[in-house]
Amino acid sequence: MEKTLSQIGEFGLIDRIREVIKREGVEVRGEDSMGLGDDCAVFSARSGYDILVTCDCVVEGRHYLPQYISGFDLGRRAMALNISDIGAMGGRPLYAVISLGLKPDTRIKDVESMYAGFVAELNPFDAAIMGGNITQSGDGLFIDITLMGEIKAGCAVRRSTARAGDVILVTGYPGQSGAGLDLLLKQGQSQDLQEHPLVTAYTLPGHRAHEGYAVACSGAATAMIDTSDGLLGDLGHICTESGLGARLWEEKLPLSEPLKTFARGMNMKPHEVVLKDSDDYELIITVSPDQAGRLCSLITHIGGAPVHEIGAMTPKAGEIQLSTVEGIQKNMRPSGWDHFRK
Amino acid sequence: MEKTLSQIGEFGLIDRIREVIKREGVEVRGEDSMGLGDDCAVFSARSGYDILVTCDCVVEGRHYLPQYISGFDLGRRAMALNISDIGAMGGRPLYAVISLGLKPDTRIKDVESMYAGFVAELNPFDAAIMGGNITQSGDGLFIDITLMGEIKAGCAVRRSTARAGDVILVTGYPGQSGAGLDLLLKQGQSQDLQEHPLVTAYTLPGHRAHEGYAVACSGAATAMIDTSDGLLGDLGHICTESGLGARLWEEKLPLSEPLKTFARGMNMKPHEVVLKDSDDYELIITVSPDQAGRLCSLITHIGGAPVHEIGAMTPKAGEIQLSTVEGIQKNMRPSGWDHFRK
Repeated sequence: MEKTLSQIGEFGLIDRIREVIKREGVEVRGEDSMGLGDDCAVFSARSGYDILVTCDCVVEGRHYLPQYISGFDLGRRAMALNISDIGAMGGRPLYAVISLGLKPDTRIKDVESMYAGFVAELNPFDAAIMGGNITQSGDGLFIDITLMGEIKAGCAVRRSTARAGDVILVTGYPGQSGAGLDLLLKQGQSQDLQEHPLVTAYTLPGHRAHEGYAVACSGAATAMIDTSDGLLGDLGHICTESGLGARLWEEKLPLSEPLKTFARGMNMKPHEVVLKDSDDYELIITVSPDQAGRLCSLITHIGGAPVHEIGAMTPKAGEIQLSTVEGIQKNMRPSGWDHFRK
Repeated sequence: MEKTLSQIGEFGLIDRIREVIKREGVEVRGEDSMGLGDDCAVFSARSGYDILVTCDCVVEGRHYLPQYISGFDLGRRAMALNISDIGAMGGRPLYAVISLGLKPDTRIKDVESMYAGFVAELNPFDAAIMGGNITQSGDGLFIDITLMGEIKAGCAVRRSTARAGDVILVTGYPGQSGAGLDLLLKQGQSQDLQEHPLVTAYTLPGHRAHEGYAVACSGAATAMIDTSDGLLGDLGHICTESGLGARLWEEKLPLSEPLKTFARGMNMKPHEVVLKDSDDYELIITVSPDQAGRLCSLITHIGGAPVHEIGAMTPKAGEIQLSTVEGIQKNMRPSGWDHFRK
């Protein structure tokens, strides 16, 4: 029988986790750095660099459906969301602190796989797990990660610094993850959708942290954010924080083939699919029109990510308008994922 | 009727939280620092200082009983645990990142009170909340805090550096919190125990971060830890990490009057009460015998905390012995709070 937490206990589990990190991960750097095993972890910041801190929590049944994701992929997913946040400010991940809320019947093997997943996402950045906490949760597992990164002092790209007239760029195909979740909820019981491109966009989203880092280094972007609340929701954050509005062109919204098929199948308009609630961890970037071309080729050169110009920032605070293919102006209400409102 | 989260939504709540922090808290320092409202928070580390990072999670029903604690005290408690960890390495708190798992029927007023509690604990250190995350939890609320602090480079006091022959010091009266929890569970339904000193030791523990900071500055301590897993459990961590054992003297174990009364009422031996599972957030400090006196007076000078010499470190790895008042040597098994083992 598979071993569970209640059999080996908290400290037994911590030993297992240490082994996974030692075997597969990057060691915490520096003579004075201390990892798991003290009251705190310790590190030294590089001179001339600022520290970035982000925190994202993944809750069973809320942010993932346990029947559709392995422990390894769940670990990768939870870490990728945080890496995306560091990248969306233009930084590079350094250290993660992981707080797990587990159930007594959680299998040790699954926790080990989860850590292997964390480490798989951190390794490309030479970033390390430096500490954490394990506790018993209520009826659902949760993974709360605080990720620290670094960025050259003063180079972080904010949400609040977009300017009217800036072009709005977006990477990849927002909406795919939300569409994948819809598919799972509607057809997941009757069909094997594991390999469906929209479903993998939901269960195992990528991040654009390498692209975000390059964007910050270029100094060209005026504002940047990742699409964790949906394209419309996160563009709404840029508008709110910058005191501006935005105009989007329906015909310019990027549509992948799977998204087109999905829209037809669901009898939805393409723009509804792209703009709906969806956590894709793509980047929205604002940039002055004369720098947009340079920024697009910079981004595609890194890993081949598609970048599309989808609209422009306007001076009308809080107003997002969509110019449809029929030439109609529609006011859009930024909603995004609101975890509580009914 | 009291407003709930499902009425005002996640972003409405974030606005309320911002107001509480602005009204009652310390502003995040520095020109480039960014708080709530971006993908990450940003700060600059002081040159010549290391960054300390700790993370502690409080789960409803597991780490607190909602019927016995107010939102304000819960906020104070959750933050004090983390401040204690920073202090136990000898550092000073700087910035907190708070991840909340809330229920849709959580009252806004309670979340605001919780934040007022966080801030009340941070203000004495001029420390600030710099970011966080809000999500929906399963059946129980959780508060997961990552607290960052600073310490002069190379001055952090670890668990793994105790030496055989060192004297073992402990502040305050470990065991009080565990006794308070016992009282609540056994008599809380029938009696009003809110003001009972053991119960307040459980619901609203203090921390010894000011003392820990002074201990680190003195350079005299060889190892330090806070008692979050009970005196025996945490002394066990020092033994394990330092590859040593310990001998405790029963007659030297500190007993407050409420603890003596509790032990009599429960028909327990005094040492059982002091050494049982209990999260008191006192400090265990090891120090060479010739420095012990100086360290004790340093600690009591700060805030009048009692300090007791309770034993000595021995070369016998992993063995903790208790010399009883009857002259018997008892082998003690460090257990501490193990959240999963049955």
